[in-house]
Amino acid sequence: MAVYTRLGAEALSAIVAEFDIGALVSAKGIAEGVSNSNWLIEARKPGRDATRYILTMYESRVETGDLPFFLGLLDHLAARGCPVPRTIHDRENRAFRHHDGKALALIEFLPGVSVDEPTPAQARAVGAALAQVHIAAAGFGHERANSMGLAAWQGLLSACGADGLRAIHPELAGIVERELAVLAARWPRDLPRGVIHADLFPDNVLMLGDAVTGLIDFYFACTDITAYDIAVTHAAWCFSNDGTRFRADLSHALLTGYEAVRPISGPEREALPLLARGAAMRFLATRAYDWLNTPADALVTPKDPMAFARRLEFYADPCNSELFRKAD
Amino acid sequence: MAVYTRLGAEALSAIVAEFDIGALVSAKGIAEGVSNSNWLIEARKPGRDATRYILTMYESRVETGDLPFFLGLLDHLAARGCPVPRTIHDRENRAFRHHDGKALALIEFLPGVSVDEPTPAQARAVGAALAQVHIAAAGFGHERANSMGLAAWQGLLSACGADGLRAIHPELAGIVERELAVLAARWPRDLPRGVIHADLFPDNVLMLGDAVTGLIDFYFACTDITAYDIAVTHAAWCFSNDGTRFRADLSHALLTGYEAVRPISGPEREALPLLARGAAMRFLATRAYDWLNTPADALVTPKDPMAFARRLEFYADPCNSELFRKAD
Repeated sequence: MAVYTRLGAEALSAIVAEFDIGALVSAKGIAEGVSNSNWLIEARKPGRDATRYILTMYESRVETGDLPFFLGLLDHLAARGCPVPRTIHDRENRAFRHHDGKALALIEFLPGVSVDEPTPAQARAVGAALAQVHIAAAGFGHERANSMGLAAWQGLLSACGADGLRAIHPELAGIVERELAVLAARWPRDLPRGVIHADLFPDNVLMLGDAVTGLIDFYFACTDITAYDIAVTHAAWCFSNDGTRFRADLSHALLTGYEAVRPISGPEREALPLLARGAAMRFLATRAYDWLNTPADALVTPKDPMAFARRLEFYADPCNSELFRKAD
Repeated sequence: MAVYTRLGAEALSAIVAEFDIGALVSAKGIAEGVSNSNWLIEARKPGRDATRYILTMYESRVETGDLPFFLGLLDHLAARGCPVPRTIHDRENRAFRHHDGKALALIEFLPGVSVDEPTPAQARAVGAALAQVHIAAAGFGHERANSMGLAAWQGLLSACGADGLRAIHPELAGIVERELAVLAARWPRDLPRGVIHADLFPDNVLMLGDAVTGLIDFYFACTDITAYDIAVTHAAWCFSNDGTRFRADLSHALLTGYEAVRPISGPEREALPLLARGAAMRFLATRAYDWLNTPADALVTPKDPMAFARRLEFYADPCNSELFRKAD
């Protein structure tokens, strides 16, 4: 959560001049994105009201080679009525350009605020929006492998080492070993695939009241099992932040909202408990790695990996498979 | 440059509800302020256009006890036509309130962007705006000691130690010893005093074209020698960023712009070379301290103290006193 690059008025004005949006009126570096710099800028054409945009400069983690996928996906989804920001193309109709050797894109600003404690009505709206994305993405026609799949979990957790995991929590190494074995042996291979968001936490959803006004931060979007995205979103929305409290009301609302737009097939439902264990493992893996590799005096506080170890245990408990069954 | 506190939609909406500004429409954490968290928020009353504000939460460094001075000063200056953001008082007419034990204030949003490479026309406008502040502040009636005066420079540089300074640059310890002695012996005691900004770098000035649209970040404002503020602003605006290149055109424009609004008296002009040495020492002191005390793996890169050592040498050279004399 940081702005890495500093851009003064001159550089920002020069960038804005490459787009047909008028003159720069204001610009604030905003604390969004973990691997890019973002500005909330405002530009105005003569005689018109000012319009706001998000200017994103890609620092290191997002490969420029993936930008046509990420930005093209936004345009594809926005054109089909999904609540995602469209990209503003430059005067040569390019979705991104370069400044000082870094790629940058201008993206539509959407109103709304991220909720901390979702209500069932909000979870229902998020489920519906996710289903809308899954349907609309069908014709996108571009593919991107999931760089945060099973192999990545194994790699990150292996880098943590059993001692590292035990340092986080005495039981964590055992949980990880047991669950990685289950996931490797049973990860489904025949479920419908498509483009998924893969990171739809409340932080990445803008809302006004109960309405979703924006799904943002598609930088983990990829081609993978569609129902895995439901599982990720379930793990991200249906627990208290520390993972200790499951919220059945949010779970029911999320799944109901999803199914109001796109039915979840029988095989997808059957697989959801396992997919949810995978989703919990995915965030456990990155959090455990960051936990062990963030300097103690860094400005960012790493997030507690145990919050997802608890979700993982919850999903692994056969008694809880029930919650993914179709309600009558 | 960081947002330290996370606030979700619920907390932000609750805060906004304490002010008569309508309902929250959007909120982005912005990367401004070194010791507080800031959000650019937008709120709307029914049937009206949305209005933007800066919401500031004070973390540690700004003492709540100083807030009546800082925020009262903004209101005092704004009421007198200075381009500073006014504070929005809450429904009980308080300039700041508390949330989770931290003080917060809602401040007017001003358009404009900070320049990196000022033109003479921009420097002239900044000089005039500074003079306007000095005049308007006269009737403010509140005092705050300068916590970054000579004693603080001595304390910070003593904490660096001669070895620390030599590690930054072989000549730095000698420069500091010589100049601190001069400043201690000759710091003026009889010049006009008043409220000063004390940190008017280009980062703290919003501009549109050649016009100043906002002076911001008054959190070093204090009661001190008025002409010292001219010296600080001179040191901040009239050199290339690394301090190697003096810009006589900007210097002339800044002083001319200032004098178009508030004359600089004979004794003030006489003192400016020494005051400028003090200004350079002030930023050298904090930068040297931060340079030696910022962890190597911190996300922030400390600024080069030598940029102000070079300014200090420039101002200490008797050949350069000339530039502060009144132009005919």
